[in-house]
Amino acid sequence: MSKINALDRLLNPRSIAIVGVSKDFSSISGKPIKNLLHHKFKGNIYPVNPKYDEIEGIRCYASILDIPGEVDVALIAVSSKRMQQILEECEKKQVHHLILFGSGFAEVGEEGKVLQEKVLEKAKQAGIHILGPNCVGLLNVKESIPLGFATSFETEKGFKSGNVGFASQSGAIGFSLFGLAQEENIGFSYIVNTGNQMDIHSLDCIEYMLEDPDTTVVAGYLEGIPDGEMLMKISETSKSLNKPVILLKAGRSELGRQAAMSHTASLTGSEETFQAIAKQYGFITVNDVDNMIDAMKVFSRGKIANGNRIVTISNSGAAGIAMADYSEALGLEMVRLSNETASKIESIIPPYGSALNPIDVTAQALKEQHILTETLEVLIEDEQVDAIVFQTTFGGELGTKICQKIAEIDKKTDKPIIVTITGTSELTGKGRTILQEAGIPVYPTSYKTMLSLKYLVDFSDFSKKQMIEPPDQVFISGETTNDLSGIWTEERVKKELSLLGIRVPNGTVIKNRSQLEKVKDNLNYPVVCKVISRDVLHKTDAGGVQVSIHNPVQLERAYEEILQSVKQYSPNARIDGILAEEMIQEEGIEIFIGVKEDPQFGPIIVCGLGGIFIEVLKDISIRRAPIQIQEAHRMLKELKGYPLLEGVRGGKQRDIQALAEVLVKVSQFASNHTGKISEMDINPIWVFEEGKGIAALDGIIVWKNRIESSVSI
Amino acid sequence: MSKINALDRLLNPRSIAIVGVSKDFSSISGKPIKNLLHHKFKGNIYPVNPKYDEIEGIRCYASILDIPGEVDVALIAVSSKRMQQILEECEKKQVHHLILFGSGFAEVGEEGKVLQEKVLEKAKQAGIHILGPNCVGLLNVKESIPLGFATSFETEKGFKSGNVGFASQSGAIGFSLFGLAQEENIGFSYIVNTGNQMDIHSLDCIEYMLEDPDTTVVAGYLEGIPDGEMLMKISETSKSLNKPVILLKAGRSELGRQAAMSHTASLTGSEETFQAIAKQYGFITVNDVDNMIDAMKVFSRGKIANGNRIVTISNSGAAGIAMADYSEALGLEMVRLSNETASKIESIIPPYGSALNPIDVTAQALKEQHILTETLEVLIEDEQVDAIVFQTTFGGELGTKICQKIAEIDKKTDKPIIVTITGTSELTGKGRTILQEAGIPVYPTSYKTMLSLKYLVDFSDFSKKQMIEPPDQVFISGETTNDLSGIWTEERVKKELSLLGIRVPNGTVIKNRSQLEKVKDNLNYPVVCKVISRDVLHKTDAGGVQVSIHNPVQLERAYEEILQSVKQYSPNARIDGILAEEMIQEEGIEIFIGVKEDPQFGPIIVCGLGGIFIEVLKDISIRRAPIQIQEAHRMLKELKGYPLLEGVRGGKQRDIQALAEVLVKVSQFASNHTGKISEMDINPIWVFEEGKGIAALDGIIVWKNRIESSVSI
Repeated sequence: MSKINALDRLLNPRSIAIVGVSKDFSSISGKPIKNLLHHKFKGNIYPVNPKYDEIEGIRCYASILDIPGEVDVALIAVSSKRMQQILEECEKKQVHHLILFGSGFAEVGEEGKVLQEKVLEKAKQAGIHILGPNCVGLLNVKESIPLGFATSFETEKGFKSGNVGFASQSGAIGFSLFGLAQEENIGFSYIVNTGNQMDIHSLDCIEYMLEDPDTTVVAGYLEGIPDGEMLMKISETSKSLNKPVILLKAGRSELGRQAAMSHTASLTGSEETFQAIAKQYGFITVNDVDNMIDAMKVFSRGKIANGNRIVTISNSGAAGIAMADYSEALGLEMVRLSNETASKIESIIPPYGSALNPIDVTAQALKEQHILTETLEVLIEDEQVDAIVFQTTFGGELGTKICQKIAEIDKKTDKPIIVTITGTSELTGKGRTILQEAGIPVYPTSYKTMLSLKYLVDFSDFSKKQMIEPPDQVFISGETTNDLSGIWTEERVKKELSLLGIRVPNGTVIKNRSQLEKVKDNLNYPVVCKVISRDVLHKTDAGGVQVSIHNPVQLERAYEEILQSVKQYSPNARIDGILAEEMIQEEGIEIFIGVKEDPQFGPIIVCGLGGIFIEVLKDISIRRAPIQIQEAHRMLKELKGYPLLEGVRGGKQRDIQALAEVLVKVSQFASNHTGKISEMDINPIWVFEEGKGIAALDGIIVWKNRIESSVSI
Repeated sequence: MSKINALDRLLNPRSIAIVGVSKDFSSISGKPIKNLLHHKFKGNIYPVNPKYDEIEGIRCYASILDIPGEVDVALIAVSSKRMQQILEECEKKQVHHLILFGSGFAEVGEEGKVLQEKVLEKAKQAGIHILGPNCVGLLNVKESIPLGFATSFETEKGFKSGNVGFASQSGAIGFSLFGLAQEENIGFSYIVNTGNQMDIHSLDCIEYMLEDPDTTVVAGYLEGIPDGEMLMKISETSKSLNKPVILLKAGRSELGRQAAMSHTASLTGSEETFQAIAKQYGFITVNDVDNMIDAMKVFSRGKIANGNRIVTISNSGAAGIAMADYSEALGLEMVRLSNETASKIESIIPPYGSALNPIDVTAQALKEQHILTETLEVLIEDEQVDAIVFQTTFGGELGTKICQKIAEIDKKTDKPIIVTITGTSELTGKGRTILQEAGIPVYPTSYKTMLSLKYLVDFSDFSKKQMIEPPDQVFISGETTNDLSGIWTEERVKKELSLLGIRVPNGTVIKNRSQLEKVKDNLNYPVVCKVISRDVLHKTDAGGVQVSIHNPVQLERAYEEILQSVKQYSPNARIDGILAEEMIQEEGIEIFIGVKEDPQFGPIIVCGLGGIFIEVLKDISIRRAPIQIQEAHRMLKELKGYPLLEGVRGGKQRDIQALAEVLVKVSQFASNHTGKISEMDINPIWVFEEGKGIAALDGIIVWKNRIESSVSI
């Protein structure tokens, strides 16, 4: 059975064994049964411990093998040293799942690693799936089934079920976040803590939850990416089902990464790469527990913003200012209302209010509630408005009535309405509860409101993009199939680029003196000469480059000088020849494009402007290959130096489209050679004026397969 | 009486009149008396309204003049149209203060503006100070005296008094923030809403509160800076009394600024300037209500961090990762513990914990509380640790006990201890309350904890700086006193710079042909020639610059060509001569320095690197003049292009000290001519290699006084 299908039984168990159960309900081995009883689990509970006959009137078994019925899930609260014996019993008993609470596996070093591998192998043979180890368990919120010992299971209030699913590598963060979200009245379907992820990992759970019809928002707290390919698949599912996936990834700092290593033995990938890919593939990323809750809240309402044109309504001018500030900072658009809409609103609100966005309905609206209702009705009908934000500080009976009105109106429209109520729970709690019960996102500060709206807008942007489609066209030449090994130097790379339809200067490789004689009178002067050698990567440093060669005599001199100079610089360098190529006269803006293989995500394409942009400002843009043309344009627009391509400082507009096409082609090349490229650089590419294209002036590919044939002159 | 002294009586009134009082306690004119009665005001209440004889058994007067006793404060709940009459009565009655709730003044246009000016003039004559208009009032929290109609006055729980003072231009934001802060158990001394600030403004209140012995933390919500000079004075007071001032300034976005204009008729200054100056002068700035509360909380404990070396303790590895992530992002240092400290901690915690920072005391510490206690004791004694962060998700009885322990330890040390408890109030509320009552800052997420710690560290950094001292040395020459008018062109500016000890190329102004004959054989060739004309600001565009002039013949040609070219470019340009100056051979890194007069803060100095740094990246650094040498260095380090000065890309280290000295000198020049300079540019300055100094190659000063004498050739 696949892990995903198997999860169904783990998350919706009918019979649960607790191995190593304790009568001390304050201990880790006592809490799971206490929690099941506390939340009135309707299925079978089988305590297992040879020390007891019964616990709370439930028969206790000496061994798993003594249990009369089937066991869906066995919770294991015994030492890792006893695991192998337990596994054997579970195999015999045909237990479907284990949840391992304890630690003592891969995270504690070599011995633990060996044990973990043994356990995993045995489990696979036996068809048993494992959650954990080093986890606090899971919660089926729909049916109030707690499997484990999280503190939040001990609530007296019961759980609020709903449409949010949450997988968390950390139990502490996962379940404390869950508790806080429940206080905000956010309902959940499932929460799973995956811990050390020996078998079932966070992405398995995310994928399962995405497919679950009751779950429409999925969130994940990740310390590493267990499976890059799977993250891509999840992106597709997210988009096809129109369900957002919110990710909080830890281990962003150097120290954080070290801590992550020792904590759950997971390798956290490069943060920049993760953030770029998450954006490219339509994930909502947050960097804080608070923002995760904010995002869950806004998405759980299930409404979509069609764009980023927002209107804010308030009875406080100051709140209007704050919302305008935040919307500018977050890239939301405070839409300029049409004359029609503005004049309709003017006729509703008092003359000292403001019918312009931010709309100020004044404190009068709290007395005459039709002011607010009618204003909202006007905005709902306006096609140029994508979302509405309402802000109030009023509490008491007035505030409560306003909230009732908003809840009524919210039902009548698909447009998102988000509310800020800034005030104490004593004074504004009732109104807040009314909104929460109606599923309307309500926040205590304008900043949280606007940030949540930004998440909503980002998701609708992503939904509109078609990023994971197959590439429009494939540009691969026959050339590459034979010889994907060693280091490809400039001349070989340029041949390949040329086959991909990327312009390179016309050139000839002169392998020896007699060839020099043959070609010298037929070249299109002026030319540039460059040494071709896989052993000389910094050609200029080696004296391996000469420019402005205007005639055969200069060419002969350059040829000799370069050979001499390179041999002096690196006596053992294998020299494949001297490349004589056209000297491009028009100067372009320098761009570099690079490819690398990310251990988690596969081929990554990187680009940036040359010079200080890369060297001082580290101004780069990253994507997973392949990309399409729109994504290539977005990639370029992200660069701080992008205005240079647009022609700032009296400069001319550059051929950005041609450059974007190169990105697409290189990304396809990288994607078609997934797993084979170690590093690839095209540097520099010159970008000429609009309409005049680009030229790739140098490049190198280092293949993973380093075995190569050698030619020397 | 000064406004500041006067505030004492406004904030601590013994007798209050309410003019235009209403028996409808849900109305704005009814709420103030209801609130005073609700909070059992001990002084005299004098309702004024000819319609009533009494309200709630308190005698009501037909006119202010009928009141028998003295009146400290009159709350005015009548239309702005009746203001003049009311003022006359208040003058006769010798009322000390008015609080104007209503609007209808400067914010509603010309008519309101005129009324406001009249009212203000009359009040000044009468010695009456005014709070408002367009405000909801103030609250003396120490003695529970609410003067106004803020929703948060209606609490049944009473107010928690404490050491935080808060002035807010917005009533809605001010009092809703107050309410939320009270829920977090933060105690206040005074809250004042200044509204339209006709007379008493936010900075008056901040200054008063700073001087108040019961107030040790002052916060302000500002929509504009009413008085730039006063903000500087407040900075000095803040530093000398070691009381932090936290500012939240609205109107950061373009739209926000427009809204601010119509809202409180205040002019919001340029955001970049404000942020730079706030940093320079040691204010803590926040950009969100939430963060304001976080900052109030951490400062209200009254402990100071001696530096940014922090240690985190947790019973969850994931929390350790998160804290490491945030500390890196915020520029805090997760200190590497000494071997001594680490081995002490190792001997306390279980072997599977981590004695390295982030410290993981493991869940065992929740059972054996001595683990935590002893670990804390070790860290308190470690001189290399400036602050300690503790994070837990555990609630219930265990959590409560842990919190009691922390509260005990916190009392014994001056070192800040900040706690994160992530969990529901149901499960973790008790522990949280114990910490809050002990005054220990406690936050629901690690991000808030680390951010608050950053505020604390920033304030201690500020306290260590001596930024508002008089300049070390004054470099002013006698030259400038005669002729501070018109436009100073390159040659005049260079003379001045030279007198300030700033190197400029040696040069001679050639005013006519005969002078040309005289000097041409005595110049130190090669030279550069440049036109001197106040009418030609873009010399290069006008053909007014020639370089690489190697001999008298070339000089004569350059002289003629420049004159001809400039006359063609701008026929009416007044030409003062041609500057022939040494051509500096060594190329430097280009820097610009600018001076402008900010309407709120006075002389501002700006610097940046030339080329794309300024034109594409808008990479500038701003300070209020004058600055000292350390501040000049900080200013340069803020630039994104700073690595270029340090010698990145194989470049050489530049003479940063020489450049910093130029900044100091120019800032002193600007400061000495406060109010007189309209614009000043020194651009470019070339910065040479370390030890080789700088040279200012061009400059211009536009004086505010534009009357000038004219000389032409």
